[in-house]
Amino acid sequence: MAKMSMLIGGDWGGSNLRLFRYDENGVVLETRERTAGVLAVADGTFEATLTAHLGDWLDAAPVRIVLSGMIGSRQGWQEASYAPCPADAEAIAALAQRVASPLGDVRILPGAQVTRVDGCIDVMRGEETQVFGVQSMGARAGDTATRLVVMPGTHSKWVRIEGGRIVDFTTYMTGELYAVLKTHSILGRLMDGDAADAHAFATGVQRTLADPALSKWLFSARSEGLFGRIAPVALASYLSGLLIGAEVGAAMRETDVRSATIVATPELARNYRIALQLAGFDTIEVVDGAQASAAGLWRLANALPLDSGVRE
Amino acid sequence: MAKMSMLIGGDWGGSNLRLFRYDENGVVLETRERTAGVLAVADGTFEATLTAHLGDWLDAAPVRIVLSGMIGSRQGWQEASYAPCPADAEAIAALAQRVASPLGDVRILPGAQVTRVDGCIDVMRGEETQVFGVQSMGARAGDTATRLVVMPGTHSKWVRIEGGRIVDFTTYMTGELYAVLKTHSILGRLMDGDAADAHAFATGVQRTLADPALSKWLFSARSEGLFGRIAPVALASYLSGLLIGAEVGAAMRETDVRSATIVATPELARNYRIALQLAGFDTIEVVDGAQASAAGLWRLANALPLDSGVRE
Repeated sequence: MAKMSMLIGGDWGGSNLRLFRYDENGVVLETRERTAGVLAVADGTFEATLTAHLGDWLDAAPVRIVLSGMIGSRQGWQEASYAPCPADAEAIAALAQRVASPLGDVRILPGAQVTRVDGCIDVMRGEETQVFGVQSMGARAGDTATRLVVMPGTHSKWVRIEGGRIVDFTTYMTGELYAVLKTHSILGRLMDGDAADAHAFATGVQRTLADPALSKWLFSARSEGLFGRIAPVALASYLSGLLIGAEVGAAMRETDVRSATIVATPELARNYRIALQLAGFDTIEVVDGAQASAAGLWRLANALPLDSGVRE
Repeated sequence: MAKMSMLIGGDWGGSNLRLFRYDENGVVLETRERTAGVLAVADGTFEATLTAHLGDWLDAAPVRIVLSGMIGSRQGWQEASYAPCPADAEAIAALAQRVASPLGDVRILPGAQVTRVDGCIDVMRGEETQVFGVQSMGARAGDTATRLVVMPGTHSKWVRIEGGRIVDFTTYMTGELYAVLKTHSILGRLMDGDAADAHAFATGVQRTLADPALSKWLFSARSEGLFGRIAPVALASYLSGLLIGAEVGAAMRETDVRSATIVATPELARNYRIALQLAGFDTIEVVDGAQASAAGLWRLANALPLDSGVRE
């Protein structure tokens, strides 16, 4: 890869586009965040959208652009399949798709795919980039050690890393369950807002950690409210605790690793840190999601096959 | 209780009113089902509603009327609290509330309440009547034996009976989770109808029985669909299997009893029977819900305190 060209990385998901401009050593010079997610781009005008948001960054030609996330899905600009796990950064980069574009050397990174021991296929797109970012940030001693990368969200992902490879991962429907139950089920009726209540959250976490009977505990978010044992203003935190505790408990049954890196916004990271502490994790670190994306895009751009310096 | 008066029993829930007219030996002479549930009765006109649906049954005065279900809740005709468990039929009947009404001797039965070993309060209203109905129907040898009464539904209830008493019960949010996830979550998008698919249902049951990580398995209803491993027409059955398997598995962790009576409509009963068979239950019987209500109302009417024959 020619060192003289400037690298631009893009984390292009369903809802947002996050762009990073790097110097030659991978230091992020500038970041742009736009609500121009793949689902918001009309009629496949991805190139025009990207051009508009890059703006003056394109003055410093030649540029190389590396994108990851939903932009590589069937609904995106150009499909870049899934790299099968176990996969290291080189295996991911090897499946990058080159996009024919006057913008320069544009690559779209693949997602990652696993067939778990439980028989299910699982996939991710964009999170694999953050995982390699976490690794290359060396945010924690023992970079090649086994660890879990926890990525809370609508569909939370727990990724197990060993020796620099993604070996396994699992998706939990936690965030969507929370939203759907709060908005559309009987549980939401007793709730008064969703302000954080530390005690109710911890109670929920401890209950589902101790007993994984989630559909029982979910109903308790009604009965505990009806009997005034949890206040209406605390019920949303209780529900959140139940769901996060169930997720952490399930993940712990899959592995003995008790060292985790949380990649999340500050609020979600705080809740997950509490849950992991209650569950007995011995090492917990938190990494900002945007920083993980930036570091991962740099890492994967530098793992692209050697012929990738050729401009189209 | 005067033997000459005719007994009328009513299972009056949120959505429906089911009325039974008995002969002097407890044989049901006639049944009426009306969509006149508590939630559909305007402005508290319960007496007028009941009078209208009883119609000619009132000609055979004197009548005694015993009601159970949501009619005894705060939103009902007159509140009849909850009998604490363990409770036998006499303990339930002792808390019946007399309603002042020109209709005659009208009683509203209480619900039942338990504080479980997991620290939660749980309640039911109407199901306790069906439980005592199941018992008095002697649908199975060993009437006083320990057994589980399984009552599938929006909020499924598992009731443990020992020596003629309700000793413990647990509610699972199974039916509501199914409906909410199918209608309002990403899982519904890939589904094509909800026809029964026996294989997909059994797969779902076996997965959550083997591993209670419900929020993981729920997401698999998307990924298995995306990868064409479960057909769109079978995804609803798969989701149903996951939820019912999780319920059965959770209930089995609470007790060693493997003898169950399912009280349900034929379709639900069929699914639960399959799930219980897959889970290794050794005795499974099915009782129709209306028959259980009829038998339970007769049983509890005959357990009312002796002074209850007095007409107001």
